[in-house]
Amino acid sequence: MPPAALSWAGGPSGVLRILDQTALPARVRWLTCRAPRDVYGAIRALRVRGAPAIGVAAAYGMVLAARGCRSLGQFARAGARLEAARPTAVNLSWAVRRMLALRTLDPAELLAEARAIHLEDSEACRRIGLAGLPLLRGNVLTHCNAGSLATAGCGTALAAVYEALARGRRVAVWSTETRPLFQGARLTAWELSRAGADVTILVDSAAAGLLASGRIGCVFVGADRIAANGDTANKVGTLAHALAARAAGVPFYVAAPRSTFDSSIPDGRHVRIEQRASEEVTAPFGLQIAPRGVPAWNPAFDVTPARLITAFVTDAGVLRPPFRRAIRKALASKSR
Amino acid sequence: MPPAALSWAGGPSGVLRILDQTALPARVRWLTCRAPRDVYGAIRALRVRGAPAIGVAAAYGMVLAARGCRSLGQFARAGARLEAARPTAVNLSWAVRRMLALRTLDPAELLAEARAIHLEDSEACRRIGLAGLPLLRGNVLTHCNAGSLATAGCGTALAAVYEALARGRRVAVWSTETRPLFQGARLTAWELSRAGADVTILVDSAAAGLLASGRIGCVFVGADRIAANGDTANKVGTLAHALAARAAGVPFYVAAPRSTFDSSIPDGRHVRIEQRASEEVTAPFGLQIAPRGVPAWNPAFDVTPARLITAFVTDAGVLRPPFRRAIRKALASKSR
Repeated sequence: MPPAALSWAGGPSGVLRILDQTALPARVRWLTCRAPRDVYGAIRALRVRGAPAIGVAAAYGMVLAARGCRSLGQFARAGARLEAARPTAVNLSWAVRRMLALRTLDPAELLAEARAIHLEDSEACRRIGLAGLPLLRGNVLTHCNAGSLATAGCGTALAAVYEALARGRRVAVWSTETRPLFQGARLTAWELSRAGADVTILVDSAAAGLLASGRIGCVFVGADRIAANGDTANKVGTLAHALAARAAGVPFYVAAPRSTFDSSIPDGRHVRIEQRASEEVTAPFGLQIAPRGVPAWNPAFDVTPARLITAFVTDAGVLRPPFRRAIRKALASKSR
Repeated sequence: MPPAALSWAGGPSGVLRILDQTALPARVRWLTCRAPRDVYGAIRALRVRGAPAIGVAAAYGMVLAARGCRSLGQFARAGARLEAARPTAVNLSWAVRRMLALRTLDPAELLAEARAIHLEDSEACRRIGLAGLPLLRGNVLTHCNAGSLATAGCGTALAAVYEALARGRRVAVWSTETRPLFQGARLTAWELSRAGADVTILVDSAAAGLLASGRIGCVFVGADRIAANGDTANKVGTLAHALAARAAGVPFYVAAPRSTFDSSIPDGRHVRIEQRASEEVTAPFGLQIAPRGVPAWNPAFDVTPARLITAFVTDAGVLRPPFRRAIRKALASKSR
């Protein structure tokens, strides 16, 4: 089994344990969150990241938040603070709102709901993996980390890879390193190599040449927010890989649970893209690379237009164009 | 004036001084090369890099090589060793062969020829800058370093920028960091900010989103080898930027002197792409990022098909499609 991103320890008065992904792969370090500000800090600093995992962490964060609240109004404000940790992933606000919708401060009820969200995410990953399995072909290229570390289950983009490995199939995955924070080189390489996949890393820039070379059979990436028309916000660099895949005639799949779809925005122009600190680019791991004083532009995400996406691989099956209709139908079938 | 990549000190028995680009921008350190193996080592370790600069360094390297030779056969073998330092840039073998073509071991004659190559490169840069100046529009995106540090003059891709700056125009350049060796973040940012340009760096992956945002008016890159049909080998990542520029409707210019054109190869499939050490990716600056044992695929270059290139900006003017004919004509007019 792939490693988990987080777990809840104890009952309604328990704590949230988060695997600190900023320390990987050098160290496996678990953080204990006892208050919502610990969860906020962990999300903000990317100690837990990946849209589905952030959603689950936020749900448990709301269990912690309720302890300090004496009214639902206070609870709602705590939710708003947690939502502000990162703006792009829709799962974060989705989970917070779902917890608020219970309209209770009862720890047992809230924990049950958070556990339900956790379990649903894990099951959604499994369904994504089963849906994606028939689409796996040849070597797989992936970007960033949309594996078990990004979810509460076996991942989104990597779910099909884990399904294949579980069936004894040999799978080779090419993982872009994913600057600025190297989630591909650090996290995807770590979890996949532990799971027995053949992993090769490459700089983000090399993906276009790799795709053009004919060595890649399919591209699988995750998503942070998907608009009603299928335009997809995901880790910066996704757009470049989608363009290169299209030019090379390689299928480009976006894997995500239904909680990542945001039907309230018509298209990608309405996604708010998080801008992060210049230093992530100019001084990775504190090592000053650029001349001092030169600024960096550091968007965490970009938007891939729906026309470059071959299909969405979701917990409600594979969605093919025309996407607007297919997405609407999949969300309507939402059993949650 | 932009900083120089190298200079010859003294007469026929002098030495070659190379600005160690691996130490930039933290330190400005000059290396003294007294033997061809010093030049070989400097080229191989990318202390001097950029196709035109490598050509000039090799020419001076041949002056050093002649000192230890007692026959033209021995001199030719020294040239072959120097050529082997890096396989992709055509300027390297071009310069070595030009030195060998003199069929002499006379230091004064050889130095005169190396100085001629040096001066021609500097003049070619100037002509590239004048040709490119009318094409500069809005913010400029560039990749890697094709500036003064990559040549013996004011650069290729950045030549037009320097011309504009010299005329008092304000120019904003967006420079990709250029993994794995960060030539953009280290070298382009350094030389351009010293020259008074507004420089912003970004991870390579962010270029597609930047282009799609409409903030870039034109892309200028250099080249390491250009085939007879216009297919262009350049720093890995160039292909992705060309695809993104095309998708965004932004002109994509390749700037190079005629010495970078290789009419002996019909198209890009015939370019030998240098593969470099895995560690440049897995452990940048010695800092282990990827899990130990996970390999990296690390091609130094990729090939951009001619159809994605708007025009070549050369020392013989701007070449527009159909490229095969335009290139043939430009090379025929070669006065060297």
